Amino acid sequence: MTPDEFRRTGHQLIDWIAGYRERIDQHPVSAQVAPGEVRARLPAAPPEQPEAMAEVMADLDRVIMPGLTHWQSPRFFGYFPANAPLAGVLGDLASTGLGVLGLSWQSGPAITELEEVVTDWVRQMVGLSEGWSGVIQDTASTSTLVALICARERATGYAMARGGLQAEARPLTVYVSAHSHSSVDKAALLAGIGRDRIRLVPFDDAHAMRADALEAMVAEDLSRGFLPCAVVATTGTTATTAVDPVGAVAEVARRHGLWLHLDAAMAGSAMILPECRWMWEGVEGADSLVLNAHKWLGVPFDCSLYYVRDPQHLVRVMSTNPSFLQSAVDGQVKNLRDWGIPLGRRFRALKLWFVLREQGVAALRARLRRDMENARWLAGQVAAAPGWQVLAPVVLQTVCLRHAPAGLEGEALDRHTLRWAEGINRSGAAYLTPAVLDGRWMVRVSVGAEATERAHVAALWEAMRREAEGG
Amino acid sequence: MTPDEFRRTGHQLIDWIAGYRERIDQHPVSAQVAPGEVRARLPAAPPEQPEAMAEVMADLDRVIMPGLTHWQSPRFFGYFPANAPLAGVLGDLASTGLGVLGLSWQSGPAITELEEVVTDWVRQMVGLSEGWSGVIQDTASTSTLVALICARERATGYAMARGGLQAEARPLTVYVSAHSHSSVDKAALLAGIGRDRIRLVPFDDAHAMRADALEAMVAEDLSRGFLPCAVVATTGTTATTAVDPVGAVAEVARRHGLWLHLDAAMAGSAMILPECRWMWEGVEGADSLVLNAHKWLGVPFDCSLYYVRDPQHLVRVMSTNPSFLQSAVDGQVKNLRDWGIPLGRRFRALKLWFVLREQGVAALRARLRRDMENARWLAGQVAAAPGWQVLAPVVLQTVCLRHAPAGLEGEALDRHTLRWAEGINRSGAAYLTPAVLDGRWMVRVSVGAEATERAHVAALWEAMRREAEGG
Ligand SMILES: Cc1ncc(COP(=O)(O)O)c(C=O)c1O
Ligand SMILES: Cc1ncc(COP(=O)(O)O)c(C=O)c1O
Repeated sequence: MTPDEFRRTGHQLIDWIAGYRERIDQHPVSAQVAPGEVRARLPAAPPEQPEAMAEVMADLDRVIMPGLTHWQSPRFFGYFPANAPLAGVLGDLASTGLGVLGLSWQSGPAITELEEVVTDWVRQMVGLSEGWSGVIQDTASTSTLVALICARERATGYAMARGGLQAEARPLTVYVSAHSHSSVDKAALLAGIGRDRIRLVPFDDAHAMRADALEAMVAEDLSRGFLPCAVVATTGTTATTAVDPVGAVAEVARRHGLWLHLDAAMAGSAMILPECRWMWEGVEGADSLVLNAHKWLGVPFDCSLYYVRDPQHLVRVMSTNPSFLQSAVDGQVKNLRDWGIPLGRRFRALKLWFVLREQGVAALRARLRRDMENARWLAGQVAAAPGWQVLAPVVLQTVCLRHAPAGLEGEALDRHTLRWAEGINRSGAAYLTPAVLDGRWMVRVSVGAEATERAHVAALWEAMRREAEGG
Repeated sequence: MTPDEFRRTGHQLIDWIAGYRERIDQHPVSAQVAPGEVRARLPAAPPEQPEAMAEVMADLDRVIMPGLTHWQSPRFFGYFPANAPLAGVLGDLASTGLGVLGLSWQSGPAITELEEVVTDWVRQMVGLSEGWSGVIQDTASTSTLVALICARERATGYAMARGGLQAEARPLTVYVSAHSHSSVDKAALLAGIGRDRIRLVPFDDAHAMRADALEAMVAEDLSRGFLPCAVVATTGTTATTAVDPVGAVAEVARRHGLWLHLDAAMAGSAMILPECRWMWEGVEGADSLVLNAHKWLGVPFDCSLYYVRDPQHLVRVMSTNPSFLQSAVDGQVKNLRDWGIPLGRRFRALKLWFVLREQGVAALRARLRRDMENARWLAGQVAAAPGWQVLAPVVLQTVCLRHAPAGLEGEALDRHTLRWAEGINRSGAAYLTPAVLDGRWMVRVSVGAEATERAHVAALWEAMRREAEGG
């Protein structure tokens, strides 16, 4: 493709995206295809000869569009907000168009230095002290894996330099909550900690980790010869946005030398609001934390921000230094390949930079406050309606609810919940995520798509009543 | 940013990228900034109020551009080709513009199914049997980490479901070559295998792993009570594009139940050329392999293709299944979150699809053949010039060379090599990577940027002679 063809098709594609966003409300929110339907519309073998770009563009509408669930729709209330504001789309386009790679500082100094600056901007925005250093990872899953590997190495006195995890005689244990995100469990398992050594710390009525129970479990493990290694606390759990008591957990961690990793993947965005910072009070006592800028904050996926207190330890665990990556300035610069798993790195800081500058922090704060207000409004409606229940405190933008009319219990209630939630999803009117809470299905309404206004939440509430009460 | 503002600035940015690519040859190839220079031009704090997009766009030229090394330049001969053809830029733009996420099949069916189809297209292009299933990871570093974790779990009978790596009494060993990429070592260490248990298999004169030496090391380790777990072979090593004897290594692996992971990150692209497939003869005996579509093949970073023989084992190791991700169709679909580390996934298949369709396989083959021909031409010139040496067989697109005039040896030769290579890099005329081979510095010329033609290689050769012979 010549630059001229790129201009032509590029302008078309920009217009196509603008049109998609303008008319996104007209699509059914969730994909209406059966398994295999998209695949069946695609050739089984690659094209030997070039195809016209017009064909490719047409297939975006013909083949891809019907197979998409529209995360940017104002009627998307599923999973969590994964906002991709248009300024961020441009930042990412600049990155891909430049086609540069950050293997080392030298291979693209601006890639490293802009990343240092914008991760530090976010540090200031969320009120963290200067004691934190940030880096962009792809996802919270990866960030948490990096954290637990660093924890493993600290606990074992850097066993990787000797015989590895097997050289450590005392079995390592990791402490999580049953309400931790599935990626936490996965990270511990991938780091080599077995299922039998992942301890589920009991939680309280608000689904928050009990620091006293953590203390007791650690003491018990110590007395049995285990080596307590790390605890993962969550600010804003996935099911109910519960908040673990970070300060109290940090106190236990400090006392026993545990690594404290804080999963603020979802709720971290809200820390730009001073009135929300109570949620992670004590955060300065953590060793690492993750905050997904690609969720509510609104940087196009992937942009997970990982902050650590001790970058030297991170580098010690992650560094490689083959001759072809060495340069004369290595002593004076950061080589971000040593801050995570991948060697090659995209210029992801650009999209974060574009979003923060185009929107400004004040507007970001206003948008998040709008979403929290909408969630509280919905919770108020639900709580006041006969037969409906709000199942957890609404501290952020997620409302956990159930329609439980008198007489409906147990598995019959589960069937009812899944039936009406799936009815809404199938209708395309909105997208909701059912999930299990305390052994029973419920529905999570996650408010916070960039385009979602009060009217959309009100329409959702009407649709839920119709579907659940009318059924 | 409204869709209308996006149209306006988006068209500008498309034109800016087209102009950048048209005039890329006018930039010094490597960044001409000192450490901290880019950072110093950026505000220390984030903007409270929105800034005009015109400002942001202007800063691309003012702040970012001087801090870049131009990987898409025809005079870029550093590291490895990381081509980002303009069709791939558009494919990636479509992905970001849509702003959809693949957490599960359900959250975006087309994301999963297009990925299945295009990874299968590449499988056919490189001549792999139908016994392989592919998935897109971010990088080869991550792919290799996933491979070694899978190997660890197979060797230990899935210890992660019990006490983890520490529950296995026999110490695991992993076999690599001193010429393996640094990411292989790193992956083994992150997987919990200690430095003392990573075995460096001796190599032959062509820097290829010796299968007989591997056999002897495994036998010795077995006799000493170790548990040999995995061997990583490379098709196309980073320093010299050496090719390990995959068939013979696979034979040893089969005999002793080792997991064979093949790192074809760089050379895998060349397997679209039937005349190159001898390089990985025996590949069907591997358990997993990685091939970076984001290198020579030319899909904008990141797009690393990871293929496995046994996807069920992969899923068993990587899967998580929390309630909020379950859906009614789970039995009939692939959930690619269970094929790698991250939960959230970008729609990366789009850029691969755009590139393959816009270019066609025939044109990709022609481009790779052009590059190999250019590398052979350069090697011929070097070999014929007095005082110059070609240091390794040129089987692909990398030429390892040295200017070693009579009387220059040892550290003096090293100083000479680094001096002229850095002279070229500093001049901005071209970008080359010095590296250590057999204990002495040499220069790697990696041919293969999309825009690099014979004339650019010829100009490089002249510049090298001038810089090295004149100095
Ligand atoms: C609390 C929490 N942690 C981790 C994750 C995983 O995020 P990612 O997809 O970036 O790995 C999520 C979102 O899915 C989350 O809500
Ligand atoms: C042989 C080989 N393996 C692995 C890698 C690492 O690639 P990535 O940056 O995708 O992790 C490279 C390139 O740098 C390579 O040439």
